[in-house]
Amino acid sequence: MTNHEQMWEELGLDVDLHKELIKSIDHTFNQTVGAQNERPASMAYFDRVLHESHGGRVAELIEARKNGKKFVGTFCIYVPDEIAMAADAIPVALCGGTQFSIPYGEKMFPRNICPLVKSTFGMALSKTCPYGPIKDLGVGETTCDAKKKAWDVVNFYVMEVPQKKSDLDLKLWRQAVADFKSRIEELTGMKVTAHRLTQTIDIMNDKRRALQKLNEFRKLDPPPISGLDALVIMQAAFNDEPTRFTEHLTELNNELDDRVKKGISPFKKGTKRIMISGCPSVMGNWKVHSLIEKSDAAIVVDETCTGTRYFSNLVEDGVADLEKQLDALAERYMKIDCACFSPNNERMETIEKIVDDHTVDGVVQYILQYCHGYNVEAIRVARILNKRKIPNIKLETDYSEEDMGQLRTRIDAFLEQL
Amino acid sequence: MTNHEQMWEELGLDVDLHKELIKSIDHTFNQTVGAQNERPASMAYFDRVLHESHGGRVAELIEARKNGKKFVGTFCIYVPDEIAMAADAIPVALCGGTQFSIPYGEKMFPRNICPLVKSTFGMALSKTCPYGPIKDLGVGETTCDAKKKAWDVVNFYVMEVPQKKSDLDLKLWRQAVADFKSRIEELTGMKVTAHRLTQTIDIMNDKRRALQKLNEFRKLDPPPISGLDALVIMQAAFNDEPTRFTEHLTELNNELDDRVKKGISPFKKGTKRIMISGCPSVMGNWKVHSLIEKSDAAIVVDETCTGTRYFSNLVEDGVADLEKQLDALAERYMKIDCACFSPNNERMETIEKIVDDHTVDGVVQYILQYCHGYNVEAIRVARILNKRKIPNIKLETDYSEEDMGQLRTRIDAFLEQL
Repeated sequence: MTNHEQMWEELGLDVDLHKELIKSIDHTFNQTVGAQNERPASMAYFDRVLHESHGGRVAELIEARKNGKKFVGTFCIYVPDEIAMAADAIPVALCGGTQFSIPYGEKMFPRNICPLVKSTFGMALSKTCPYGPIKDLGVGETTCDAKKKAWDVVNFYVMEVPQKKSDLDLKLWRQAVADFKSRIEELTGMKVTAHRLTQTIDIMNDKRRALQKLNEFRKLDPPPISGLDALVIMQAAFNDEPTRFTEHLTELNNELDDRVKKGISPFKKGTKRIMISGCPSVMGNWKVHSLIEKSDAAIVVDETCTGTRYFSNLVEDGVADLEKQLDALAERYMKIDCACFSPNNERMETIEKIVDDHTVDGVVQYILQYCHGYNVEAIRVARILNKRKIPNIKLETDYSEEDMGQLRTRIDAFLEQL
Repeated sequence: MTNHEQMWEELGLDVDLHKELIKSIDHTFNQTVGAQNERPASMAYFDRVLHESHGGRVAELIEARKNGKKFVGTFCIYVPDEIAMAADAIPVALCGGTQFSIPYGEKMFPRNICPLVKSTFGMALSKTCPYGPIKDLGVGETTCDAKKKAWDVVNFYVMEVPQKKSDLDLKLWRQAVADFKSRIEELTGMKVTAHRLTQTIDIMNDKRRALQKLNEFRKLDPPPISGLDALVIMQAAFNDEPTRFTEHLTELNNELDDRVKKGISPFKKGTKRIMISGCPSVMGNWKVHSLIEKSDAAIVVDETCTGTRYFSNLVEDGVADLEKQLDALAERYMKIDCACFSPNNERMETIEKIVDDHTVDGVVQYILQYCHGYNVEAIRVARILNKRKIPNIKLETDYSEEDMGQLRTRIDAFLEQL
């Protein structure tokens, strides 16, 4: 990371503690992402995005704010970036994936809620999050109990994601989308117009198309990229400026094209193909992906919020009317099949399709500790996988390194049966 | 408990294991409820309701089903009993409060979800729940992640409780109420009419009035009834036939009137007055109430679903039109201030009011382990109590006896500071 000490000082961070945080994340990165072989050269950019997430990216946001832009911190892939961007706001995901800040989060929040929530608020509470001080608005949603109640405590704006998918639920969600637009307009003083929304829908659809293309490469045997690198790209997607991100992802996709032709891959043909299913792995969290691939299996798809749930389905474009654009946005985001829905048959169908499309040999249900939603839904997921005789295992874990030995043993035993 | 062995056999229960369950509950009951002094004579009825919950009450339901009635198992105080009853169904809460069945629940469900869910499903999975085999419909709702996802697994009918209180949310809930009516009508083949609904609204309002009256007695110093006995009455309320229940509660209230005149109470005047706030304590679960009162404090109010949340607010009566009755029902039930709402300012206001009305000296936030909703909301509750300088403590616990020593120590230390 470039030296941004003065900036952190000015933001009121605990600079010494922040140094320790960065050192801790760098250490984990080097042990996992950095320890891989045969990485595509274009991954250098995405590594840099991660490394500059507390440095260059923050400097960029500070600069943008000086030029009148507003910075909106988000948490969940239900928040429509297109709308924020159309009103001249810059949305960036705030999710924390590091163990380092968790003890600080636990000073305010219960110990037995999910590590993602504790890690994120732990950074804020320990003054090691550079985004907190420059945040003009925090946007939460109602997708799980722990987050839903946390917004109350930290005073975030809350979008209501319904829990079923009836017409009236869609209407409720459509209203939440419209209310979000009003709130953002109020924040920036800019009106969201059809013209601007056309542009931002294109930007985000282009980003999704590039991610979908990346996902196509992962269907090959062997895939030309590791699952851990694909995860790094997803983590960068949550932080980076989207147009720039898409350009670099396109470059990487071209390189992957080339690698396929030349037969270059981190894996041998016939390597066991794993799907990760369940909870997101946000920046700082490479633990389970790394463990699995170090055990000589290939993660070929992530059925998670840092995977297919983020980039599946485009927003209908070519719609010139503002209200219809909002309809299209509401419709696209409502297709995300989070475990927050009851029932969640759509997710079951998605899983069956992905398992076929990516020729999956085994499924790892990845559950962030205390995430009741995905943890209980895992029963249903296991049922449909068992019915199709696809081996599957549930790994419930947090961000700590304490259970790594145990996880490795379980993963190895699982891979042996494939 | 009367001998109902043949009935349990016919229901397909594991009769031997069921005997052990009953023995275990009886043991806990005797150690807690039964160990009290100066109990009102009329408590005998409510004790009997609890003791006959797997016996006489089940026999009664079997008899009613033979006469064409349908039995509806519910879980949550958002399910409007009035509607079920108006279509000739009998709603009974299925919530489990016993440690005994938890290991069986954990065979299917994650260990780290709330004991109430695990206890309930554990009874079903271990064939010790007599209600499962006679249930014509199970009705769940969307108030927390663990329950919401459990319904998917066990195939319950699900009412969507919204997460905010906008006009559109109320509309969504109103629709859920109407859909529930249709589902119940389909089940019983009976139409819900305005005439029948008038009757059942009266029945349930009478029940609430009697519970409100009981709650008034608890405002006195000393209260003429223990918090543990008041809890037993609430637990009976979830199981008993409502008209019969109200008759017996009226009798008890009359006795309490008399006790007040005569100065009879389980407590001395000036006994420290505790409010329990947070999660419900359902049948089988007397642990924390008993510990607190054994430490010479009086629980004078329960701000829980087995307390004020259940009986506050009547349904508007005297409405002759069916649609308007459904409006009134939707409105009344939406006033319940469960932690599932974001934000939940109504609950904060309620707590401030109750603390005054009951002259509360200290608040015990009672959190069922892994209940993220009440656990995270506890931060806000503590803030408003601290602001008013009302001592408060958070006790997070399950149904086991393992932490009783530790709880006792914490409770004693807390009471000393009052």
